Amino acid sequence: MVRGLRVVMLGAGRVAQHLGPALQQAGHVVLQVWSRTLESAEVLAAQIPGATATADATGLAVADIYIVAVPDAAVPAVLAAAQFPAGALVVHTAGALPLSVFEEWPTVRGGVLYPVQTFSPGRTIEWQKLPLCIEAADKAGEATLLDLASTLNADVRLVDTQQRLRLHMAAVFACNFTNHLLGISHALLTEDNLPMKLLAPLVRETIDKALAEPPFSVQTGPAARHDAPTLARHQVALAAYPGWQNLYKMLTESIQQQARGESQNNEGAF
Amino acid sequence: MVRGLRVVMLGAGRVAQHLGPALQQAGHVVLQVWSRTLESAEVLAAQIPGATATADATGLAVADIYIVAVPDAAVPAVLAAAQFPAGALVVHTAGALPLSVFEEWPTVRGGVLYPVQTFSPGRTIEWQKLPLCIEAADKAGEATLLDLASTLNADVRLVDTQQRLRLHMAAVFACNFTNHLLGISHALLTEDNLPMKLLAPLVRETIDKALAEPPFSVQTGPAARHDAPTLARHQVALAAYPGWQNLYKMLTESIQQQARGESQNNEGAF
Repeated sequence: MVRGLRVVMLGAGRVAQHLGPALQQAGHVVLQVWSRTLESAEVLAAQIPGATATADATGLAVADIYIVAVPDAAVPAVLAAAQFPAGALVVHTAGALPLSVFEEWPTVRGGVLYPVQTFSPGRTIEWQKLPLCIEAADKAGEATLLDLASTLNADVRLVDTQQRLRLHMAAVFACNFTNHLLGISHALLTEDNLPMKLLAPLVRETIDKALAEPPFSVQTGPAARHDAPTLARHQVALAAYPGWQNLYKMLTESIQQQARGESQNNEGAF
Repeated sequence: MVRGLRVVMLGAGRVAQHLGPALQQAGHVVLQVWSRTLESAEVLAAQIPGATATADATGLAVADIYIVAVPDAAVPAVLAAAQFPAGALVVHTAGALPLSVFEEWPTVRGGVLYPVQTFSPGRTIEWQKLPLCIEAADKAGEATLLDLASTLNADVRLVDTQQRLRLHMAAVFACNFTNHLLGISHALLTEDNLPMKLLAPLVRETIDKALAEPPFSVQTGPAARHDAPTLARHQVALAAYPGWQNLYKMLTESIQQQARGESQNNEGAF
């Protein structure tokens, strides 16, 4: 296991704020933090002993790996603005960005280090066992990424661009959309002065079951049991929220279609 | 705290299988289990020392409380078939059934004991702190239900029919629909030979966050950040699943509408 890799972090947002200190603590050397605004770079660099801050992407330190941890849509602009040493290993951390994003910059060796997690300020990330998906344009880059990731004791996997896109899309369903549904629940409860914690044991049990068994096989609720009176009562109760009422209908239909064993993989079937 | 209440359980399904033994262990006496099929009643009665089994709803034992734990849609038929002693306290366990379901049977005192949890065979239910929502037609029934529920160390609350319906509806969003989304994730991953456990830390972190803060305030993902290229890539990747592609669009639109601060509580706005 190689420690002491020299790292330059481009970006000072949520991913960089967690990944930078974690790499330092795992025995690597974060030389420099670049951000579009010097102040952001300085805030993060202050969390990492020995790291300097810069807002000048043409004056990056010489490092073993450059990690571009910025919002997906900002990656191309950062690659365009930065001056990397020829042959530098430059990786992004985005789920939905292909490796081919680096093809415009043939003097660098591209790669991907995608942590399958959501990063929020003030929350602790458990890196041990965290899935880290790796892809690299060349074997040497892949080896460096494997070295780097394995020092975090993460669950490191080689995942290609196509698989990563689908993994990211699955994460959108499982997490972003799930959070939105929990938000609707929260809003409905709040209107009735009921606390969200009333649903906590049920939500946790639902998640435990869904992670233990294929979720379609453990589907419960009024949609799954075709409980028409309950479905009708809920539709009436949602009359004041036409958007959520419509979502309820669509999700109910999708559950019932799934239960009928109708393949979704059938263009035009819906 | 009153123990030793005499209970008759009507129903031998998932709720009864968990609630019956839990009440016995909490110091109450489950005299009898009724089910439409004698065999089901016998299977459950065998789990409860001292309980007898019957399929004859006209020969129920004399008890302090009769708990009708059957699927919501079956409750009226069970109430019609059973002969309860005059003045008996009879409760159902359904989230979406009003207390008024008992009005057709004026010789019994109606009530509700709604556990906010999903019950599956083979899983252990943690009754301690479990939200138990109580409603009763009269104060004496309410007192008996409070006694019964408090011996389980549950989080006992008085919740009226209207609130319970909305709580149940919120649970459908937070749990049934969430499970369906996790099922879609699972199906997408499986097609790419990726294991669901890749998403486990992300799902758990999402849930932890959503239960700690208002979920709308911590929404992340391509919809929330209006990441058009990623949204477009996901739409292409979902082309073979038109139903899920459509759900993706609807949920994305709902997230963006929420972020714009548009009230959902506005008839015809969607």
